[in-house]
Amino acid sequence: MSEAKVGIIMGSKSDLNIMQDAADILKDLGVNHEITVVSAHRTPDRMFDYARTAESRGLKVIIAGAGGAAHLPGMVASLTHLPVIGVPVKSSNSIDGWDSVLSILQMPNGIPVATVALNAAKNAGILAAQIIAIADEAVTQNLKIYKEDLKSKVEESAKEMKDIGYPSKY
Amino acid sequence: MSEAKVGIIMGSKSDLNIMQDAADILKDLGVNHEITVVSAHRTPDRMFDYARTAESRGLKVIIAGAGGAAHLPGMVASLTHLPVIGVPVKSSNSIDGWDSVLSILQMPNGIPVATVALNAAKNAGILAAQIIAIADEAVTQNLKIYKEDLKSKVEESAKEMKDIGYPSKY
Amino acid sequence: MSEAKVGIIMGSKSDLNIMQDAADILKDLGVNHEITVVSAHRTPDRMFDYARTAESRGLKVIIAGAGGAAHLPGMVASLTHLPVIGVPVKSSNSIDGWDSVLSILQMPNGIPVATVALNAAKNAGILAAQIIAIADEAVTQNLKIYKEDLKSKVEESAKEMKDIGYPSKY
Amino acid sequence: MSEAKVGIIMGSKSDLNIMQDAADILKDLGVNHEITVVSAHRTPDRMFDYARTAESRGLKVIIAGAGGAAHLPGMVASLTHLPVIGVPVKSSNSIDGWDSVLSILQMPNGIPVATVALNAAKNAGILAAQIIAIADEAVTQNLKIYKEDLKSKVEESAKEMKDIGYPSKY
Amino acid sequence: MSEAKVGIIMGSKSDLNIMQDAADILKDLGVNHEITVVSAHRTPDRMFDYARTAESRGLKVIIAGAGGAAHLPGMVASLTHLPVIGVPVKSSNSIDGWDSVLSILQMPNGIPVATVALNAAKNAGILAAQIIAIADEAVTQNLKIYKEDLKSKVEESAKEMKDIGYPSKY
Amino acid sequence: MSEAKVGIIMGSKSDLNIMQDAADILKDLGVNHEITVVSAHRTPDRMFDYARTAESRGLKVIIAGAGGAAHLPGMVASLTHLPVIGVPVKSSNSIDGWDSVLSILQMPNGIPVATVALNAAKNAGILAAQIIAIADEAVTQNLKIYKEDLKSKVEESAKEMKDIGYPSKY
Amino acid sequence: MSEAKVGIIMGSKSDLNIMQDAADILKDLGVNHEITVVSAHRTPDRMFDYARTAESRGLKVIIAGAGGAAHLPGMVASLTHLPVIGVPVKSSNSIDGWDSVLSILQMPNGIPVATVALNAAKNAGILAAQIIAIADEAVTQNLKIYKEDLKSKVEESAKEMKDIGYPSKY
Amino acid sequence: MSEAKVGIIMGSKSDLNIMQDAADILKDLGVNHEITVVSAHRTPDRMFDYARTAESRGLKVIIAGAGGAAHLPGMVASLTHLPVIGVPVKSSNSIDGWDSVLSILQMPNGIPVATVALNAAKNAGILAAQIIAIADEAVTQNLKIYKEDLKSKVEESAKEMKDIGYPSKY
Repeated sequence: MSEAKVGIIMGSKSDLNIMQDAADILKDLGVNHEITVVSAHRTPDRMFDYARTAESRGLKVIIAGAGGAAHLPGMVASLTHLPVIGVPVKSSNSIDGWDSVLSILQMPNGIPVATVALNAAKNAGILAAQIIAIADEAVTQNLKIYKEDLKSKVEESAKEMKDIGYPSKY
Repeated sequence: MSEAKVGIIMGSKSDLNIMQDAADILKDLGVNHEITVVSAHRTPDRMFDYARTAESRGLKVIIAGAGGAAHLPGMVASLTHLPVIGVPVKSSNSIDGWDSVLSILQMPNGIPVATVALNAAKNAGILAAQIIAIADEAVTQNLKIYKEDLKSKVEESAKEMKDIGYPSKY
Repeated sequence: MSEAKVGIIMGSKSDLNIMQDAADILKDLGVNHEITVVSAHRTPDRMFDYARTAESRGLKVIIAGAGGAAHLPGMVASLTHLPVIGVPVKSSNSIDGWDSVLSILQMPNGIPVATVALNAAKNAGILAAQIIAIADEAVTQNLKIYKEDLKSKVEESAKEMKDIGYPSKY
Repeated sequence: MSEAKVGIIMGSKSDLNIMQDAADILKDLGVNHEITVVSAHRTPDRMFDYARTAESRGLKVIIAGAGGAAHLPGMVASLTHLPVIGVPVKSSNSIDGWDSVLSILQMPNGIPVATVALNAAKNAGILAAQIIAIADEAVTQNLKIYKEDLKSKVEESAKEMKDIGYPSKY
Repeated sequence: MSEAKVGIIMGSKSDLNIMQDAADILKDLGVNHEITVVSAHRTPDRMFDYARTAESRGLKVIIAGAGGAAHLPGMVASLTHLPVIGVPVKSSNSIDGWDSVLSILQMPNGIPVATVALNAAKNAGILAAQIIAIADEAVTQNLKIYKEDLKSKVEESAKEMKDIGYPSKY
Repeated sequence: MSEAKVGIIMGSKSDLNIMQDAADILKDLGVNHEITVVSAHRTPDRMFDYARTAESRGLKVIIAGAGGAAHLPGMVASLTHLPVIGVPVKSSNSIDGWDSVLSILQMPNGIPVATVALNAAKNAGILAAQIIAIADEAVTQNLKIYKEDLKSKVEESAKEMKDIGYPSKY
Repeated sequence: MSEAKVGIIMGSKSDLNIMQDAADILKDLGVNHEITVVSAHRTPDRMFDYARTAESRGLKVIIAGAGGAAHLPGMVASLTHLPVIGVPVKSSNSIDGWDSVLSILQMPNGIPVATVALNAAKNAGILAAQIIAIADEAVTQNLKIYKEDLKSKVEESAKEMKDIGYPSKY
Repeated sequence: MSEAKVGIIMGSKSDLNIMQDAADILKDLGVNHEITVVSAHRTPDRMFDYARTAESRGLKVIIAGAGGAAHLPGMVASLTHLPVIGVPVKSSNSIDGWDSVLSILQMPNGIPVATVALNAAKNAGILAAQIIAIADEAVTQNLKIYKEDLKSKVEESAKEMKDIGYPSKY
């Protein structure tokens, strides 16, 4: 297996049902990844080590998902110069997801986190692939095909609706 | 000077105008403190070291203030078993303070942060003193006097209003 | 049984399913507690008496949970100099928990409440133990072991994921 | 001077610039009031005594204004069967007034507070007069005249706009 | 049957499961009521007529419940000088109840609505009884008994918890 | 079939269960419509073409429903001078619908979107009919009848409640 | 002067500084309007009469602006079948405009209000013109020219930035 | 001048005072950029053309800033496979920035936007540089130096505070 270019981490194994989407789409787009659990609050040393060694292990992008007072994405971003993508996870005691979103998004000047929508691990994977693609023609092609597929599915939906009798000249 | 029992830290020197209130009230209540700048995002190593050595330096309580995606209180709490008090600071690009509040308050199970109101560094200082007081009779007395003073000021306000003609039989 | 050091109170018996977590973790951490129902709005005299006699009964910390317009933690804090930990409970007609959080957190200068996350009674218990620990070496050791356990569980999760085939060099 | 029927209280003298509006409109509507400072958090005993003796002092309605974690209206309501009107005050460190509103409005079953809009002490005064009016014909007449005046002022505004050339057939 | 003193109206029959609580508690407290459907938006003439004739029909207080863009309480308040109590109902497409709360609470100067908590029709009924009680000794007594009952139930809960083994010296 | 005057589009076929209400009420009110799927983000060219050709295909009004970061209504409004009605859809990962509402409502000066309530596709259909009616007497009559029906249903509800014993002189 | 097709009303003359924008843009787009003050809460009869006579006076569209618990747009919509455009005004004691927005937007099924952005009276005027334009070729042409002007101004801004040295190949 | 790798666009020239920060930091980090005005709503064709030709013009990353119902970042992301960074701008009539944040962040599956904090154009520039750096060693070095500088400034602040007498053993 060739080297992983994207590292996916999450604050708790309970986030795996959300974060799996990032792994799946990266596979579809031809980008190798690794995936594990790293908790900012319960394993701060592991987080430090993971982030500090990320570059040397060949990672180009890190995707970090967390919920509630979600510090993992921002802390990883503080420990590496690699681009970090944050996925706000709507966990059980989250206040409607606002805590997850704001504690990932609102990073201070100097340490950005590329935040995606609530629970949007799939988009985190696509964004990671878009970043890898700036220096990888094969991934670029895969992204273009993916965009075409998105379009085709909408057009098929439109055709299906017309076929079953919904009125539309368009 | 005797040893500091409360450590006050803030994410940026620009938070000092808020965090000074914690230092001032601690002084009034007879509790020694130390105060410095520690940024979770810009100086993660300094934060690790500060938190990990806090107990050995004699600290009993840590007060941490930060704004926006405020990770300092929670990360310090992950690195020490000492009680950590978090002060959400309403910084310039904060979204009305909600980001500061939620990213400090909504900590996951296992790693609490004792959160006080937005910008309420004074209350953080009082809370720290209340904690110190569980094993310090002198501070306990100071807190009792402080509470009496709060009461007296309200009663004086009431008397003043009556004196200048506001109607009240009470 | 030795004396209770932490008093747990809640505004309604219906909050017990949440507040039980505080009692359980305190037991695990070797801190004696007492637990009962005290309503700010339905039994104000009982609340006054509970808070005013807390110190003399040997309590060092009070944990108060309440929902909606949650006045119990703040009112108890007004009646004693002991540290009071507030647990915002997401009760049935609460507006997504915001009312509980804000009416506990946003205390005026002079009367702090150490607020934890929504429904986070477990963290309230841990925080109470951390406070007791500043003058209790046994509890300190228990807290250190607890923190190690938190870490171990994450590391086990990571190992499990790797064992069942999730790719990770880390 | 005849007996005060409405008691106006506020958590801090700094709320007087808001709460004065209640006193002024009550005077206009012919309802005697008393006004003073009572803090739930700094003078809990004074609050208890004020509320418990309110009926015997002849009060029929209590207006209570407070900001932040605003417990005064709800606590007074817990201590008397008289109707209590709550005025959420947007104080300096309030989070846009949401804390004041929610901690007054969201009272549990059994202990209502008649909440008015943020800073709307004038409406609290009118509401108190409306309550007094259910057994006072003179105040009823004053309220009817007041409503007529409100109407007349709008009609005058409309006429003025037309007079200075704003087009309207209406 | 003696004359109804409190009129309960709601914007839609689907609100009856909430608004029934107001009727039930009023009955318990010995206050006659009438109850019907009046929609501000679907039957504006009926609303006008209901509000304008309320005084002459003997009503002393009106309770109005509505959800979403809830205009019924405010519009009724504009059409009568009687005190109007508003119940924000969390209807199906409401945005978490915020729309109901704000469109009832935030009335302009001159036309107050006594707003109670989200879905708190029971409290609306109690508040109406408190208002009636300012000129009705029997209702006053009922309210005092009701308050005692609230207290007793909490004390029983506390006793039950102790009886089944929850530790408490209090 | 005569020409469609209202075009209904939605960002995803999964919005059809909401948007069908617009089609149904338009049919009831005698206004021809067409309905199809057009995604701003997945089929931007289709959106451009749909909007740019809308006038020439005889459309007078466009109803566009979308959720989350809902750009369809605003982008269609940027591409045509026809009135565009936006329906905020509360989709699965929406943050309580706030994202849908704000990204449709808060259009900049120059390009309005006529926004209706969350999920209120029925109201979007009625509004479209109201617009068509300014130049169509038959639709005007249908709207008047529709308003009468709304009124009758409320009056029937009121009568039913009285019939089954709810007290009301009104 | 030819007949007004758009009626602009506002809840208070103090809203005129906002609502003037609607009048100005309507004039620019060649649509006659009338403008006056109509308060839902202070002049309910005037509101009823205005709305009920709007059609017979020749109005085709009504623009209603109001703040706080803003009932004017929705109540007018309940009283006429004409399309009603609502402008949420951020008035002085509004809670950041949320009250104005929600009490106008969240209308129940059957009675839509075409809501525009906070304070966006200009967009209300444009939307009214777009509605008039469905049966008025001259206004249609004016709208097309207006859209071209919007485009030209952006292109000029882009050119200016390039001219003063901002790098861009585009 | 060598080719621009990052394209900065904004919805209105009035956003330039915010977006300039992105240009400045990119210059500091040694990354060429271009910057211009592109409005999604006023110049949709220009936006289409800009996004569709971005790859062929050599751009690797696009930074798009917009306020209110901010559709520019998401629409550009729909039109190119390049990574798009969105900057929510708190414009004058924005509702506290929530509209800008949510309409950029909450993109549907398939079309991510890398969102940064409110007004955080500087972080958008840093993030763009981090992306460029995955295939550019010089930029990588610049980012490492930049991170060192951030650290040094905090350490200097800490030293300054100690020098002027703030107590700290740390």
